[in-house]
Amino acid sequence: MKLKTITMEWTGDSLVLIDQRRLPFEEVYVTCADYRSVALAIKEMVVRGAPAIGAAAAFGYALGVKEMVKKSASYDIVLLQMKNVKEMLERTRPTAVNLFWALERMQNKLIEHGKYEGLVKVIEEEAMKIAKEDIEINKAIGRNGAQLLEDGFTVLTHCNAGALATVDYGTALGVLRAAKEQGKNVKVFADETRPYLQGARLTAWELMKDGFDVTLISDNMSGWVMKQGKINAVVVGADRIAANGDVANKIGTYMVAVLAKRHGIPFYVAAPTSTLDLSIESGNDIPIEERSHEEVTNCAGRRIAPNNVKVYNPAFDVTEHELVSAIITEKGVVYPPFNENLKKLFEE
Amino acid sequence: MKLKTITMEWTGDSLVLIDQRRLPFEEVYVTCADYRSVALAIKEMVVRGAPAIGAAAAFGYALGVKEMVKKSASYDIVLLQMKNVKEMLERTRPTAVNLFWALERMQNKLIEHGKYEGLVKVIEEEAMKIAKEDIEINKAIGRNGAQLLEDGFTVLTHCNAGALATVDYGTALGVLRAAKEQGKNVKVFADETRPYLQGARLTAWELMKDGFDVTLISDNMSGWVMKQGKINAVVVGADRIAANGDVANKIGTYMVAVLAKRHGIPFYVAAPTSTLDLSIESGNDIPIEERSHEEVTNCAGRRIAPNNVKVYNPAFDVTEHELVSAIITEKGVVYPPFNENLKKLFEE
Repeated sequence: MKLKTITMEWTGDSLVLIDQRRLPFEEVYVTCADYRSVALAIKEMVVRGAPAIGAAAAFGYALGVKEMVKKSASYDIVLLQMKNVKEMLERTRPTAVNLFWALERMQNKLIEHGKYEGLVKVIEEEAMKIAKEDIEINKAIGRNGAQLLEDGFTVLTHCNAGALATVDYGTALGVLRAAKEQGKNVKVFADETRPYLQGARLTAWELMKDGFDVTLISDNMSGWVMKQGKINAVVVGADRIAANGDVANKIGTYMVAVLAKRHGIPFYVAAPTSTLDLSIESGNDIPIEERSHEEVTNCAGRRIAPNNVKVYNPAFDVTEHELVSAIITEKGVVYPPFNENLKKLFEE
Repeated sequence: MKLKTITMEWTGDSLVLIDQRRLPFEEVYVTCADYRSVALAIKEMVVRGAPAIGAAAAFGYALGVKEMVKKSASYDIVLLQMKNVKEMLERTRPTAVNLFWALERMQNKLIEHGKYEGLVKVIEEEAMKIAKEDIEINKAIGRNGAQLLEDGFTVLTHCNAGALATVDYGTALGVLRAAKEQGKNVKVFADETRPYLQGARLTAWELMKDGFDVTLISDNMSGWVMKQGKINAVVVGADRIAANGDVANKIGTYMVAVLAKRHGIPFYVAAPTSTLDLSIESGNDIPIEERSHEEVTNCAGRRIAPNNVKVYNPAFDVTEHELVSAIITEKGVVYPPFNENLKKLFEE
């Protein structure tokens, strides 16, 4: 059983990840032959982006099951040990809910299967299903979102919610891809997205590869660009969406949303329903990961600030639902009031 | 006649500038022995910051007069040639008005003096006066602004409006220094200020040198930091202020101002009256410099984006006067309506 995309490849024995820390200059691949190395790859952002993290964790879980089945002859022991594996994979990144969602789904499959025989195959199939579904889901998000973009629009995007943030195709960038496939001429402005530069390194790279007209700006410029009337819509991804429609996404998203509101520019969030966390009432309850100071004091591996300077480095922020024009999911475009309309997605 | 500050030193024969491109890691000095090298140093941002540019240009003008007096024995020829020198110095940076203000003042002195004899001394004295006045003006700005900051405040600043942006003491950072001198405990958050990193490289450096508690954040974080209630006031500098109070300042200032408004945080602009351009009605008429693409595609000298990516790099933006709580000048704190109250500054 195999899968091969730009973001990840499942060989049957290992998960091969493109090292996103080194893009766009080097295409280097990291092979994860056990669940520990998958956990490390997620933590250290070899792979990043909420849906991609979810899929990678599912394959990590599958590698864990393989190892535990090899080590022990009892289903109960495998089940017990997989709780620890799941916890280890969960501890890598706290904000994106897709990680928890994918691992929960894998565990449910393990419990549902209920026996030692055929376990490895069933679990591997489930991980593959998550990955393949992610691509289909992104294409559906793209189709649903593309109707919101008119021919000739220029779209601002923040961070990378592209093929690299998913198994393939992307969420926010999937919307752009679908619009392009429909023959619409859509131009893009990409924020560089400090401190990790996902916009400059990843979004610019993958959109240029696909022949988009993409203009790179520093994060400081999006407000001015909007004020000059250069932007028709904003489309971003999400790491977790609360029941009321509050959106946790890459740090800086909140600023872009406030500015879009000021300029009357629609602000769209593109995300699979696995990013919805209806157990959480509002964004106030979403845990926000803080990352290392070096991400801020360094840029492209070089020190840019005085030694010993204090640093604050939240990796995400929360955009209140009042700032969100619509949430684009694979099940359709959801408009306010989100509290009601997000629930309806799960009622069919 | 000598002057020595951290930003610049006038030796009598040359202007020595600390190379701000290489701070905070190297303290390297550039010696400008003629007006051409001063113009280049301004253009290439060896020296930057509106008041510092003004003073440097004044010394550049003085070096020009020295050279022209040496070359020709007639006042009229010197006057004629200095028009070209002035134009060359003016062409370095278009946005900061202090450059034009200082050169106009130097030219007026040249015309006022009206004769060949004693010209070099008079012109050199005028440049020295501009530089020394700048320090006094900044201290007055500091005193006037410090009353707006309460003990225990945390202030967000953008770019570097510090000692390095002026001859000494600073405008926005002068306000912080004055508050500290009054015994107030004022903490600072500094935006790194891409693409040129003046916040990370210069503001953090000079505030740490002065013993401030300074926390560095990426530009993407200021909105989130405000939302968390960490900021009590914003203080920034300015490159040009129009008659209606619209403020041109480092790109990203506009975003910070919009966010401060949203969070009910006062947004203060600290600038000498030489930054006011009452000949310009609104910010729409302020020319905005666009700088090289490499500033955006590179960071700390390293490439961070794909080759051939399109770039937009405006170096400044305009913050509408409705977003400005007060303008702190050496003549006092000016509140809205700015259209009336800025004029009054010049009426005494």
